[in-house]
Amino acid sequence: MSGEPRLVFMGGVGEVGRNMAALDMDGRLLLIDAGLSFPEAEMPGIDLVLPDFTFLRDNAERIEAVLLTHGHEDHVGSLHYLLRELTLDIYATPLTLGLINGKLEEHGVRHRARFHEVEPGGREYRMGPFATRFYRVAHSIPDGTSVAIDLPSGTLLHSGDFKLDQTPIDGRVTDLQGIAGEARRGVHVFLSDSTNAEDPGTTGSERSVGPVLYDIMRDAPRLVVVACFASHIHRLQQVIDAARRVDRRVAFLGRSMHQSVAAARSLGYLQVSDQEIVLIEEVGSIDPRGVVVCCTGSQGEPLSALALMAAREHKWVMLQPKDTVVLSSSVIPGNETAIHRVLDGLYRTGANVFHVPIAPVHVSGHAAAEELKFMLNLIRPRWFIPIHGELRHLAHHAHLARDVGIPEDQILLVEDGDTVTLGASLRKGERVTAGMTFVDGLGIGDVGEAVLRDRRKLAADGIVVVVVTVDAHTGEVLAGPDIINRGFVFEEASEHVLEEARHRVMLALKESAAQEVTDPTVLKQHIRSVLRKHFFGLTQRKPVIVPVIMEV
Amino acid sequence: MSGEPRLVFMGGVGEVGRNMAALDMDGRLLLIDAGLSFPEAEMPGIDLVLPDFTFLRDNAERIEAVLLTHGHEDHVGSLHYLLRELTLDIYATPLTLGLINGKLEEHGVRHRARFHEVEPGGREYRMGPFATRFYRVAHSIPDGTSVAIDLPSGTLLHSGDFKLDQTPIDGRVTDLQGIAGEARRGVHVFLSDSTNAEDPGTTGSERSVGPVLYDIMRDAPRLVVVACFASHIHRLQQVIDAARRVDRRVAFLGRSMHQSVAAARSLGYLQVSDQEIVLIEEVGSIDPRGVVVCCTGSQGEPLSALALMAAREHKWVMLQPKDTVVLSSSVIPGNETAIHRVLDGLYRTGANVFHVPIAPVHVSGHAAAEELKFMLNLIRPRWFIPIHGELRHLAHHAHLARDVGIPEDQILLVEDGDTVTLGASLRKGERVTAGMTFVDGLGIGDVGEAVLRDRRKLAADGIVVVVVTVDAHTGEVLAGPDIINRGFVFEEASEHVLEEARHRVMLALKESAAQEVTDPTVLKQHIRSVLRKHFFGLTQRKPVIVPVIMEV
Repeated sequence: MSGEPRLVFMGGVGEVGRNMAALDMDGRLLLIDAGLSFPEAEMPGIDLVLPDFTFLRDNAERIEAVLLTHGHEDHVGSLHYLLRELTLDIYATPLTLGLINGKLEEHGVRHRARFHEVEPGGREYRMGPFATRFYRVAHSIPDGTSVAIDLPSGTLLHSGDFKLDQTPIDGRVTDLQGIAGEARRGVHVFLSDSTNAEDPGTTGSERSVGPVLYDIMRDAPRLVVVACFASHIHRLQQVIDAARRVDRRVAFLGRSMHQSVAAARSLGYLQVSDQEIVLIEEVGSIDPRGVVVCCTGSQGEPLSALALMAAREHKWVMLQPKDTVVLSSSVIPGNETAIHRVLDGLYRTGANVFHVPIAPVHVSGHAAAEELKFMLNLIRPRWFIPIHGELRHLAHHAHLARDVGIPEDQILLVEDGDTVTLGASLRKGERVTAGMTFVDGLGIGDVGEAVLRDRRKLAADGIVVVVVTVDAHTGEVLAGPDIINRGFVFEEASEHVLEEARHRVMLALKESAAQEVTDPTVLKQHIRSVLRKHFFGLTQRKPVIVPVIMEV
Repeated sequence: MSGEPRLVFMGGVGEVGRNMAALDMDGRLLLIDAGLSFPEAEMPGIDLVLPDFTFLRDNAERIEAVLLTHGHEDHVGSLHYLLRELTLDIYATPLTLGLINGKLEEHGVRHRARFHEVEPGGREYRMGPFATRFYRVAHSIPDGTSVAIDLPSGTLLHSGDFKLDQTPIDGRVTDLQGIAGEARRGVHVFLSDSTNAEDPGTTGSERSVGPVLYDIMRDAPRLVVVACFASHIHRLQQVIDAARRVDRRVAFLGRSMHQSVAAARSLGYLQVSDQEIVLIEEVGSIDPRGVVVCCTGSQGEPLSALALMAAREHKWVMLQPKDTVVLSSSVIPGNETAIHRVLDGLYRTGANVFHVPIAPVHVSGHAAAEELKFMLNLIRPRWFIPIHGELRHLAHHAHLARDVGIPEDQILLVEDGDTVTLGASLRKGERVTAGMTFVDGLGIGDVGEAVLRDRRKLAADGIVVVVVTVDAHTGEVLAGPDIINRGFVFEEASEHVLEEARHRVMLALKESAAQEVTDPTVLKQHIRSVLRKHFFGLTQRKPVIVPVIMEV
């Protein structure tokens, strides 16, 4: 496996989330991020989606280390699954390590991870053949980084997730000097965040949200609830700062919120005193004008604190007219319906509700088109690979790159499973196994496309099971046929459909007996075909039909 | 049922689509619109959603007439279902009647509808006790109207769907003079379109899309495909006009496109000569630089022309690099995932793809916040009821009304099923049966919440059927237990789970036999509980478990 280095894309390109790539050089592998994604509507029952680990399993002994660019789930969420199989050296900034620490402990795999804290700013960290340098980037979580890695033909620069916020809350702007230093020495290949490539202009500064939150809290006549991502420490800081100015204490609600607040406070990323915090259990018994509740659920997740409040089922927060709810978040594509349902529930409580686009209570963490072009012009890479996005985002980012003068044949559009050899020229190599591994309950990978296909069919038209007991020798029907339906028709309303089905199965069995057909496989096929026709004719539906023949 | 008139809201308020209301006065009912809506993700297998007709069935002999404000599906789509049960007088403008005519014929109910053409502009149309006047409004379909209806206490004004386009394609601006005339005489209650109440400013003019389409066609090196709603005649006109200027002929693709083009041409709403049209079957054999294909599918509908093109499966249009595809449409909430999938497929073909927000190839047909306020200020109604939207849209519209000075207690937020009595004061009355009637294949209403709940459960974790044949007298197991699973686990990978399940059922049956339990209901309950525990322990999933006991 020596020769030219190559990049292996295991996730995050062409599909959102599950960000994961491997740099394969001198026989060793350096993983960049290990994320997960959340299921889409046509993946019923699925809880989480992991990258397919086949390539990593096949090359396990060659893995040198894992770098994590930042602590978001789509970059670190599959790590504890990977650690079930492997022991890994992990390089990341303090907050990123702090955030994953709790999760790895919770899953009993902390002992399999050797943490290496990195300090952004250009210092070199060596992992086997890989010389790496980290640079701070502004994003919707503190302590995010870009990373530069030396290749024989120049530098590979991976942007991480970034924006060019000129006034970030922690004062830590994207390290343009450091990145420019890499650029001056020559970036051979640049991989850059495409999330907001479709958005014109520049993304607003995180700092612009603070005054909006302050105005809302100042004017709020009663309780204020703010929903945002638990890991959005800068947003939480702004909620806390605004609350302080209007004499409200802050209640953190939910496990992920508590975990990330604890990690951020202990590492000095979040400034809030104990006196400024009130326990959620006490919120009901104090003046609602003195409290701001911080919770998750801004994506409409069912059973989240916010969804329960919207349904008036939350244990500690029963919303009332004149309460105020702020969704300090964007709408992640795919979550629209769930979010709209929660919004409608919130409005129904009579609360004042603030959300984008009607109130500027959120800004994105990703660079928009002008920032992406700025970055491309700063770096002037020889080769460019847009990453982090669906295909249309990558295509738009490629467009932007052409606009600033990167030759079209030096831009590569890649998808999950693609590999790119990193010689003087870049070219696509052999594809590797990649894709989605579904997590459903305790099962990882046991639900695949075949099972999902069944679930989708069951969801669309339900299932009809036909059971009949026959004499193994004579084929005579001893019991049944019994017809059981779930999700096909409402039994009481459509009894005739099922009764007629029973009748037709009986006829089919008699026909077969007359022709001395007793092979159960043939009988089942016959029953299925008779019922398919019957049901489709009457209803134009195609339920899953399962004939069961019991022989005694 | 005499006394004060009342409004009955059967759809369109609090939920989108299915717009339908009835004015109940002097013992007669005047229906305003008869729309449908499209299923959401959690309505698997459902094709369409109709309003619940219970109230209309119960009051069938009191129905005087139906007015249709315009020809969009969410305003006219349930009419042919209603006509299966009733014969109705229908009042609408020529294009609206032209568009529904085909559909009613197709469904064999044309003879049950008596068409009455109305001419907007204030002329009075009398239907029993109802004196009505129509006023033209600009919208994303020609020939849309507002309607004024006399009440004892003043006028009821229903906005229809509208925008205040100052430069509409057909030159027919919203009839502000006519509406102002009604206002001067005093509008007692105003019902107004809330769709874009969350959008600040004003909605762009339809005319702004033309130059963008022209630029795209002029620069397009090969074939151009434009996807939009078939009923968006003004948009089609602009496509045709731009095509003419760049010497391209137009191919209309798909049945709904052909139907609506035919209706609009024959009534003079669409100007295109036969010479400017090319048959879609011929597109493959002529120079792609001379063609624009107009098709539907802009909402990502599976099996639509656009979806097939994106999957490279369309019979007549095989997209290639340098082809151009324009999605001249907005994203209707709920369709994001489907649209993104189609977009990714289109990008994968190498085509240049234009869509909002990255290119201004679409404007909305609904008034934004400033226009809504303008309308409220023009009309100065005594009472205001925001309609046409989810609850949050209605709530925002109510906000706008308060901002322009309508007293809070003269604004009513209503939801489907609410009734409002229309005396000197308005107040909510007794609710009526309302909600969703699902259409699934040929079935209308036979799939209800119970069946959908089953489908959702089946989708989430699949189904396990356990079949056992026992001796009716001794309870001895004669055959089985057989375990069949669909959508729960992948059989080959999880054989142990199912084998162990079989074993546990066998044990359970033996236990029961030992205790001389033979009641099948009890046995089934026992099997269900044993398996539920077993499956959840191993997988944390809850498949539907169906035990079948055959007695011989």
